[in-house]
Amino acid sequence: MKPLILVTNDDGIYSKGLLSLYRAMNTIGQAVIVAPDREKSAVSHSLTLHRPLRTEKLAKNIYALNGTPTDCVTIAVSKVLKRKPDLVVSGINKGGNLGDDITYSGTVSAAIEGTILSIPSLAISMEGEKDYRFATAAGYAKKLAGIILREGLPGDTLLNINVPNSTPGKIKGVIFTRQGKRIYDNSIQDTFDPKGSKHYWIGGGVPLWKEGNDTDFYAVKKGYVSITPIHLDLTNYGALDYLKSNWNNYIG
Amino acid sequence: MKPLILVTNDDGIYSKGLLSLYRAMNTIGQAVIVAPDREKSAVSHSLTLHRPLRTEKLAKNIYALNGTPTDCVTIAVSKVLKRKPDLVVSGINKGGNLGDDITYSGTVSAAIEGTILSIPSLAISMEGEKDYRFATAAGYAKKLAGIILREGLPGDTLLNINVPNSTPGKIKGVIFTRQGKRIYDNSIQDTFDPKGSKHYWIGGGVPLWKEGNDTDFYAVKKGYVSITPIHLDLTNYGALDYLKSNWNNYIG
Repeated sequence: MKPLILVTNDDGIYSKGLLSLYRAMNTIGQAVIVAPDREKSAVSHSLTLHRPLRTEKLAKNIYALNGTPTDCVTIAVSKVLKRKPDLVVSGINKGGNLGDDITYSGTVSAAIEGTILSIPSLAISMEGEKDYRFATAAGYAKKLAGIILREGLPGDTLLNINVPNSTPGKIKGVIFTRQGKRIYDNSIQDTFDPKGSKHYWIGGGVPLWKEGNDTDFYAVKKGYVSITPIHLDLTNYGALDYLKSNWNNYIG
Repeated sequence: MKPLILVTNDDGIYSKGLLSLYRAMNTIGQAVIVAPDREKSAVSHSLTLHRPLRTEKLAKNIYALNGTPTDCVTIAVSKVLKRKPDLVVSGINKGGNLGDDITYSGTVSAAIEGTILSIPSLAISMEGEKDYRFATAAGYAKKLAGIILREGLPGDTLLNINVPNSTPGKIKGVIFTRQGKRIYDNSIQDTFDPKGSKHYWIGGGVPLWKEGNDTDFYAVKKGYVSITPIHLDLTNYGALDYLKSNWNNYIG
């Protein structure tokens, strides 16, 4: 039996990156798309609880859902797919998902949802702002998905993959990295509605990064594919020890 | 000068838990509310990028914003407050934010945003389903906020606080905990629109938890206030070492 691979994203069902990923997955297994019916970038790990959701079958093995990437994974696994998938892949995102910014990412969140459901999962994103060479990322997605299907992944861990926007021949290699740290650029633009009332629009700005040649950001900048293993345990164990030693007196 | 304390939540500006937290913060500093104009539960760390946002001043130091908790923090710090706040507090949430579920939580995400902006931050939630005794949680919020203002927090780390729904006298104490692990209960209800077309509604279900007497879940269940130090680095360093040792051959 072919491996069953759930394909989703946060750029929406009509994204070329999704199609490219779907085709790559169909060369190594049976791919099924369940993806948001419109763009859902920066929705993070949102679940839609306040209204019912609907799937629409657009073609064989391709479904649109009027919800978030996380909704797509949970509904796909419970309601759309005939059995639990062997792999969840999310992407190919237009733009990198690097450093602290992954906490905003719908692309990564779909892979987090897969991981919560105990399904090996990866998120794949392409650096850049336009003219994405999705075929390059799709090639790496295929290779890495194949390894995951054969070797598995460490427990409770997904792979966050970022690919430079280059042709395959120009990629320098693959590096395992840690999540980098962004120097926050708080970019909010003032804007006005037709009646002259002030509004704020979040976005723009150029991210700056802290140095560190073992980070996701650095690898992509230098022309390498970055693979960061991400887990769901946010506990800061160092801080936990510190608080136990130092704060118990204050709390009494 | 009094400490400046930004107060937000994800249950929306009319939540009693928010008001209770605001009053508690005003006893130790100058509190300012910037909170979503409606309920924004389970929005996770969403940022609103596709439309402008508007603040509405409802009273002195109380602002509603038509966005997510994360929007509230970033807009408050950049546009509403006269200076960078000394503390961000988020809550008091109706219902616990425990284990892996914190990745969905708007309450915790507001504190994550504060931390990204290098501001000490805490999220506080009350276990239970109704008849919340917010005064109990507000008392702990006041005490812990006071300690943070005096002692600071370990770098890049926020406190995720969960309080049992009891009177102060019945709380057994405070425990520092790690994030627990939920056994995922995939609860999705089939429902039908007036024309008979099938929809899915996510929600309901009773969470089950893996054992572990050092977890957030266990502490609250046993009647203690749980404090988990959370950081933003999702890298699984153990898995990173494993992949470096074992996967480089496959990748070639």
